[in-house]
Amino acid sequence: MESGAKKWGFQGKPELNAASATTVRGYLDLLNGNINKDNSSSVVPLAHGDPSHFPNFRTTSAAEDAIVDAVRSGKHNFYAPTVGILPARRAIADYLNRDTPYKLSPDDVYLTIGCCQAIEVVMAVLSRPGANILLPRPGFPYYDTWCSYNHLEMRQYDLLPEKGWEVDLDAIETLADENTVAMVIINPGNPCGNVFSYEHLNKVAETARKLGILVVADEAYDNLVFGSTRYVPMRVFGSTVPVLTLGSISKRWIVPGWRLGWLVTRDPNGILKKSGVIDSIIGFLGFSADPATFIQAAIPQIIENTKEEFFSNIICVLRECADICYNTIEEIPFLTCPKKPEGSMFVMVKLNVSMLEGINDDMDFCLKLAKEKSVIILPGRAVGMKNWLRISFAIESSLIREGLARVKDFCRRHAKKPLNR
Amino acid sequence: MESGAKKWGFQGKPELNAASATTVRGYLDLLNGNINKDNSSSVVPLAHGDPSHFPNFRTTSAAEDAIVDAVRSGKHNFYAPTVGILPARRAIADYLNRDTPYKLSPDDVYLTIGCCQAIEVVMAVLSRPGANILLPRPGFPYYDTWCSYNHLEMRQYDLLPEKGWEVDLDAIETLADENTVAMVIINPGNPCGNVFSYEHLNKVAETARKLGILVVADEAYDNLVFGSTRYVPMRVFGSTVPVLTLGSISKRWIVPGWRLGWLVTRDPNGILKKSGVIDSIIGFLGFSADPATFIQAAIPQIIENTKEEFFSNIICVLRECADICYNTIEEIPFLTCPKKPEGSMFVMVKLNVSMLEGINDDMDFCLKLAKEKSVIILPGRAVGMKNWLRISFAIESSLIREGLARVKDFCRRHAKKPLNR
Repeated sequence: MESGAKKWGFQGKPELNAASATTVRGYLDLLNGNINKDNSSSVVPLAHGDPSHFPNFRTTSAAEDAIVDAVRSGKHNFYAPTVGILPARRAIADYLNRDTPYKLSPDDVYLTIGCCQAIEVVMAVLSRPGANILLPRPGFPYYDTWCSYNHLEMRQYDLLPEKGWEVDLDAIETLADENTVAMVIINPGNPCGNVFSYEHLNKVAETARKLGILVVADEAYDNLVFGSTRYVPMRVFGSTVPVLTLGSISKRWIVPGWRLGWLVTRDPNGILKKSGVIDSIIGFLGFSADPATFIQAAIPQIIENTKEEFFSNIICVLRECADICYNTIEEIPFLTCPKKPEGSMFVMVKLNVSMLEGINDDMDFCLKLAKEKSVIILPGRAVGMKNWLRISFAIESSLIREGLARVKDFCRRHAKKPLNR
Repeated sequence: MESGAKKWGFQGKPELNAASATTVRGYLDLLNGNINKDNSSSVVPLAHGDPSHFPNFRTTSAAEDAIVDAVRSGKHNFYAPTVGILPARRAIADYLNRDTPYKLSPDDVYLTIGCCQAIEVVMAVLSRPGANILLPRPGFPYYDTWCSYNHLEMRQYDLLPEKGWEVDLDAIETLADENTVAMVIINPGNPCGNVFSYEHLNKVAETARKLGILVVADEAYDNLVFGSTRYVPMRVFGSTVPVLTLGSISKRWIVPGWRLGWLVTRDPNGILKKSGVIDSIIGFLGFSADPATFIQAAIPQIIENTKEEFFSNIICVLRECADICYNTIEEIPFLTCPKKPEGSMFVMVKLNVSMLEGINDDMDFCLKLAKEKSVIILPGRAVGMKNWLRISFAIESSLIREGLARVKDFCRRHAKKPLNR
């Protein structure tokens, strides 16, 4: 039968394809597609927040044991409650309580499919006609995707490289209006690798309170800090302003593929409850997808049995990687790094395009770098800053050296000839 | 600080709470909340499509082994590609190809978080302003939820109890117009327990082709048939009409909590590709949550190592449960069952409300039954048919007998006194 003979009444939605292209994975697909397969050198992935492939970032056997025990028990094959099973909620509350003086209750914890679904939930709940939300620039593009999808207007505030990537609090006050519902902070910073101080977070809380907006604290990289600034969870300031904390086991345990995260409410004054936000979170979770039940069931044992040594070893590896990355970048005149990373797995680097010949911008740089040198780096535009680069250092140290050596070589080959020599 | 002193700019979205309340889990929460805790008898759950708690429905150790091996390897902790990992897509294609003469390719298979996320994807992709979709009545309320969420107009066609719950094809032709994008069928039937014949599915395909709409075939209960009608996958008719098949390992392997399903396209004439539907599926999956990577990685081994004996044993158990359920219902004069179930885990039963005193309708019946007898049955309104009941027989046979004995007793206690005796 000829398909052309029939008029079909359905069609695709191009906006879904467009939304997908602007995620980190969308950019990665594009860059990986530009790798020259005839090039004999192996690909160096400096764009990705997923070091789980590398032996030095293997998760702890305690976590694997917990999954095995949960599956073998045969007791966790059922549909979980939509907010997550109680033992997992309790274990996560206790785990997060290690970092703060007050006590979260299990009821404050909602399990999600990684931190990503927690973002999806928050954007769905906060969106309403005319509302807007304040997002950091540079930031994490997944927020933009779900804002667009939910028709929630995005207003970008700057993180200030000259102030160690602190929030531009003046910009927050200028951008916010009576339709602003929340501001998002990401701490430890993705993509900047910075860590906000207690004092700065306190100012964020005071500003948000003054404006009557809640703070969404993306703490996907919680406790992954290795510089001089201590990690402080935003929910410490919950009595000043209601805080929604987003987190997961993905980064600290190096298991992003396990898809287990959380959305945690900290609201001692009951404002989230009164405003209906809590009910709407529960409502949305009531009909959206859930994390696998046996992975939820493994959480108490994962948390209980993971030794401090595992965490400190990962920190040690990350610190070494960050040092190598920063020091090597310092030796490349075409790149400028305003601040040595102190947390997360990334650093933001300014690309001095004017020093390069035949390279139009960051995207052009990254596409040609992939093609000529088989190195994958995320262009800054993917995170909101044109002519910057986001470089991940969470890989094997030899690969950081190899990748950045290729970057240096690439820059030299594309350097402008000096005019006055 | 007083929270009342501050005007906060955010609020919840009551429509999310409302959407959640109309899911099966929403009804279950409501009914479970009505259980009288002072009642000493244990709860009999006859409302649920999740028999994983019961020893006679324990999954095969081959499936557990596959998960254990995938976790222990340490090779599957990474973020999976948004469409799913290739070995899993290939294994599912091969698995589905057992049932049909032609061959699906791995590219036709998209992994989802259970069949539920496959529904979410389809509703997101097909919705556009003014579009409508044809859904069965009775049906599965999750479709309604995601249609509402996406502002996709629902038009309900009847399944005809007097014809063994076949599709009312005349109604399909009457309901469809130039804005109709698809019709949904659920086979084996949830909630009716019916199985469509080859001839009937062929008519469905011809009707859909005539109307220019695609067929969404929910085959979550694929191969769970135990009557005289053979299970035929809708994609057999893919050359007549494009078919989107939704499925999962949840029901056949009795592991609903593992959250692994699929969306499969069957479209030998390339109509879905040309219309942009395929690209939009990939687009939506590009920014939505994924099934856990190691569960994806376990799929080839799960499928390869599951013995036919496991499947046939489950069928045997379901047949016995269905027989007991049907025969016991036949003995309750207040209930009428138009057709003995031949598949899935459910049967639809008409409640003769006029024979009961002080029972207004199906909802009232189920609430009072929960309270007085600790038996949970889903009211028909949850699946679109007022004054019917959906009864699940996928539990231990002794519990079916116990639950239905309590139903019988409940009906007798609430029976109207005969007028002429």
